[in-house]
Amino acid sequence: MSLIEALNWRYATKKMNGNAVPQEKVNQIVKAAHLAPTSSGLQPFKILVITNPELKEKIAAVAYGQQQIIDCSHLLVFAAWTNYTAENIKEVFANANAERNLPESATADYANNLINNLTSKSAEENFHHAAKQAYIAFGTAIAEAALLKVDATPMEGFDAEKLDELLNLKAQNLGSTTLLPLGYREENGDWLVNLKKVRTPLTDFVIELN
Amino acid sequence: MSLIEALNWRYATKKMNGNAVPQEKVNQIVKAAHLAPTSSGLQPFKILVITNPELKEKIAAVAYGQQQIIDCSHLLVFAAWTNYTAENIKEVFANANAERNLPESATADYANNLINNLTSKSAEENFHHAAKQAYIAFGTAIAEAALLKVDATPMEGFDAEKLDELLNLKAQNLGSTTLLPLGYREENGDWLVNLKKVRTPLTDFVIELN
Repeated sequence: MSLIEALNWRYATKKMNGNAVPQEKVNQIVKAAHLAPTSSGLQPFKILVITNPELKEKIAAVAYGQQQIIDCSHLLVFAAWTNYTAENIKEVFANANAERNLPESATADYANNLINNLTSKSAEENFHHAAKQAYIAFGTAIAEAALLKVDATPMEGFDAEKLDELLNLKAQNLGSTTLLPLGYREENGDWLVNLKKVRTPLTDFVIELN
Repeated sequence: MSLIEALNWRYATKKMNGNAVPQEKVNQIVKAAHLAPTSSGLQPFKILVITNPELKEKIAAVAYGQQQIIDCSHLLVFAAWTNYTAENIKEVFANANAERNLPESATADYANNLINNLTSKSAEENFHHAAKQAYIAFGTAIAEAALLKVDATPMEGFDAEKLDELLNLKAQNLGSTTLLPLGYREENGDWLVNLKKVRTPLTDFVIELN
């Protein structure tokens, strides 16, 4: 199945049947997010993979009771860095240099410029920026789930403050940005499954400058 | 090629050889962005597809002279709505209802709640939100390019204000968020092509809560 076919197949599943996604497929979906490109390679986010039933129920309660959070087998929570710090940034470059057998000096100027640039911005601005990187990975994870014929429901509808508290994210300098329950559609009772997929007309979406 | 293999194959190409990407492949990459999910299906962004050589040179000049903008055959500019308005949101639902043969009343309550919610927020907050939706599509476009073995360089490094002016985006209630030059790698002279792909160790990236 091509990615275009997979993206046409997927939809924001409204009802899941409770069947479990094999761990190997979950790993591949996480891997697709892990491989997504990010600004300067910072990867300023983490993914929580939640299977605990009691915890999923508590999360649903701060997400307008959305039942897919309970009926999915694996709930992915994308959580971005709440701010950029010199330490975090240095750690990224130290890891890259170690993996590439390069000295610290190979990236020192670039890293220092980046640190000066990012740490001069507000925490709010930086959280938005970090979250945007997580959204790229959200996109590649959604793509991989569809290719594997795993259903998923991209979600922004939750109380981020309460979710952060529930998952103890603030203490880890993380803030929740999106949720992605993974599971399998239950067509009986899903109001969206049989509705035509609609997008903005392509002629309005694309502007060609030749 | 699987998506994981494709994401391992791709890298932020630093030098392109000037060969043209077939229009059919460009269309598929745009299509992958067009099919990406967005918050409430709003698709609050457009994609500019730029092939004009003079325009690409002018864009490179406000993007730190990055040569890939000139050497790519097609430059994609992802531009998000600068704000949400009742008109824009109503248009999205009107289109969806028309496509689905549903009356306006089918989505009236949902759309009105959404309008009240979004138009009560600041333009800045809404632009960030719209941009995040564009980043999901940026992710699926990058995935599709890699699957088609088309090279691409995800870019945030440009003067957004100057680019918006150059492309007359403000008058269209759009603001540039990211660039994606499409082309083919020129290995000779690309400092990144032979460096090992590095990501945060997976054990640091994933938090499992079972």
